[in-house]
Amino acid sequence: MHNFQWISPTKVIFGKDTVKELEAPLKAAGVKGVLLVYGGKGTFKSGAYEQVTDMLKRAGIAFSDLNDVKPNPLISKVREGVARVKAGGIDAIMPIGGGSAFDTAKAVAAGACYSGDIWDIYAGKGKLQDAMPIYGVLTASASSSEVNGISVVSNPETQDKISMSGLCLYPKISVIDPSFQITLPEKQTVYGGVDIIAHILERVLDGDTGNDLLDEQSYALIRSMMGVIPELIENPKDYDARADYAMAGMMAHSGFLSLGRKTRGDFSSHKLGHSISLLYGAAHGASLSVVMPAWARYLYVENPDPFARLGEGVFDIYDGEDEDRALEAIESLEDFFKEINAPTTLRELGLKEEDIQKLADNASKLVPFGSLKALNADDVLEIYKLAY
Amino acid sequence: MHNFQWISPTKVIFGKDTVKELEAPLKAAGVKGVLLVYGGKGTFKSGAYEQVTDMLKRAGIAFSDLNDVKPNPLISKVREGVARVKAGGIDAIMPIGGGSAFDTAKAVAAGACYSGDIWDIYAGKGKLQDAMPIYGVLTASASSSEVNGISVVSNPETQDKISMSGLCLYPKISVIDPSFQITLPEKQTVYGGVDIIAHILERVLDGDTGNDLLDEQSYALIRSMMGVIPELIENPKDYDARADYAMAGMMAHSGFLSLGRKTRGDFSSHKLGHSISLLYGAAHGASLSVVMPAWARYLYVENPDPFARLGEGVFDIYDGEDEDRALEAIESLEDFFKEINAPTTLRELGLKEEDIQKLADNASKLVPFGSLKALNADDVLEIYKLAY
Repeated sequence: MHNFQWISPTKVIFGKDTVKELEAPLKAAGVKGVLLVYGGKGTFKSGAYEQVTDMLKRAGIAFSDLNDVKPNPLISKVREGVARVKAGGIDAIMPIGGGSAFDTAKAVAAGACYSGDIWDIYAGKGKLQDAMPIYGVLTASASSSEVNGISVVSNPETQDKISMSGLCLYPKISVIDPSFQITLPEKQTVYGGVDIIAHILERVLDGDTGNDLLDEQSYALIRSMMGVIPELIENPKDYDARADYAMAGMMAHSGFLSLGRKTRGDFSSHKLGHSISLLYGAAHGASLSVVMPAWARYLYVENPDPFARLGEGVFDIYDGEDEDRALEAIESLEDFFKEINAPTTLRELGLKEEDIQKLADNASKLVPFGSLKALNADDVLEIYKLAY
Repeated sequence: MHNFQWISPTKVIFGKDTVKELEAPLKAAGVKGVLLVYGGKGTFKSGAYEQVTDMLKRAGIAFSDLNDVKPNPLISKVREGVARVKAGGIDAIMPIGGGSAFDTAKAVAAGACYSGDIWDIYAGKGKLQDAMPIYGVLTASASSSEVNGISVVSNPETQDKISMSGLCLYPKISVIDPSFQITLPEKQTVYGGVDIIAHILERVLDGDTGNDLLDEQSYALIRSMMGVIPELIENPKDYDARADYAMAGMMAHSGFLSLGRKTRGDFSSHKLGHSISLLYGAAHGASLSVVMPAWARYLYVENPDPFARLGEGVFDIYDGEDEDRALEAIESLEDFFKEINAPTTLRELGLKEEDIQKLADNASKLVPFGSLKALNADDVLEIYKLAY
């Protein structure tokens, strides 16, 4: 096990009807005006917007709205938010939504404390030093953005989707009321679930060994998600299943499952998926269910061990040579994605054969990446071909 | 799943040779003098004392020693520490050791900020409001005291062993270097391991349902510990096994595994065990390996479900009626305790039949307790009889 440091300063308030529990800490912190950061209809449909604004009115806290945040959120929306905060009257940022709202809120919170253009920090040309306090209300689990200090933002001008991270980006408080997720479209439940599973896989498939205990925790978490997603397809209103899903969503990418590993995770599949989202607008989770099995098929012959261990830990595959068990594990994962109606090919996302090269060109801007194997441009092209 | 709030403010610095990483944060916090709180020989043998004092000398930080802290630490030692701190020159408390050192340090840290006798707070006659900052160095895992805000202290005068808890008692930083644990006596590795397993069992056997995901995490953690303890009996110097053990020790009683449960855990076995330690000086872990199976045997017929689920999750027991699977799970747990040479009867601890009533009288001062079943004085007596 490698050395690590761990801190997780966000306070989590979890459960039914918990938005109201934000009132006291907001008042105690002397907050006078908040910027609400959210997407669109879903925020109203879930009831979250109404509960939040009722609470703010009761507390006598002013608010204004930065809405229409898109999935794979844009730097342009962040800049709009930063300008709003710099104009005055706002002393805290409040995302209401999923990872996109939280990631945008973090970017706005940091941008408001930065003299230059916030994109500079993502691009590695500026240094993250401070951010305004963030109090979030989660309405869609997947990114763990509610409990981590990471913000991922896309810039169509440069065709980049990159992240910044820092201690100042952790929300002060995140309210996680799983009942807000009952109104999510089935597709979002499925894709969010794929993303959660992928966050765990990025760790256990990173090629590091000597982390048996957290590997076992990770396998158990994947098995739990594989139970919960079909349950929610069957009965979207199952509160306990929503709560388990929200708990897994919080744990998978908080950073805890990376502790003691050589790297923070492989994350090749995330990088390969980002290009699909950026160029063709695919949902983040859909890009992952397509690219992760292809990535695995490309690598398992040379690196059967982590896949074979996954087979044992998640799919009860004990018989055969390492390589055979590895392939069976990959097939089992793919079968599960099919069972929950997540796409497993680029064709299902509507891409044409000529798009493969475009994807490869975009993703290759970041090579080498990956820890199980450091991928080069040729590898990237081959993986997209396998994904087609 | 029940609503919960979660915060875990302690920063963990984990790994080989990490004591030196305390220097910068101590200086940054302006610490000028620390009280080192520890037991005895083990602290020197592990190398921890030398590393800590070398680091403090380099940093130009003065230190004085509160040593001879015993397992099941005493309020008299706490009072001695409080008097030392109140005499001046100390602005941080630094436990070096396991749960006893940390629990004593927390008590001293709180006592120094309290005008009355610190025992009043344990006894419910005073209110915990503030504590001095705690920077700890862990040399024996089991209690999770390094990452929680709980302090358990014994008072032989009143024959009490009780706890206080609060946000101000969380260490600011805990250094967990698993290599310090390589020199632990085998018995301590075993008893600490039993304690870690017991902390997990107190949760999954509390009678609450609807927490499938964290139950599965808990079962996986027990399985990991059941692998790690025999590995460490075989090879005490196995660093990765020590690291997994330290990680489990940190996770089991941090409070995370209680999230969403109706209670924070059953903890009957801990209460029943406390009387054995208090009256007969038994090691905490040894008291648990004796009393936990007896408690389980007393309850499983009326409450087979949590035991049957434990059988599935930990011991791969799938066949038979709930009650049969429950009993098989309890027997399997007992067999494991025997395999690692942990006692499973009061007789092995040297107790006589006439001691049973004394134990029952002492433990019954706290009845009713327990959440799977709220135990009364008769129940307590019967369980001790079964444990004999």
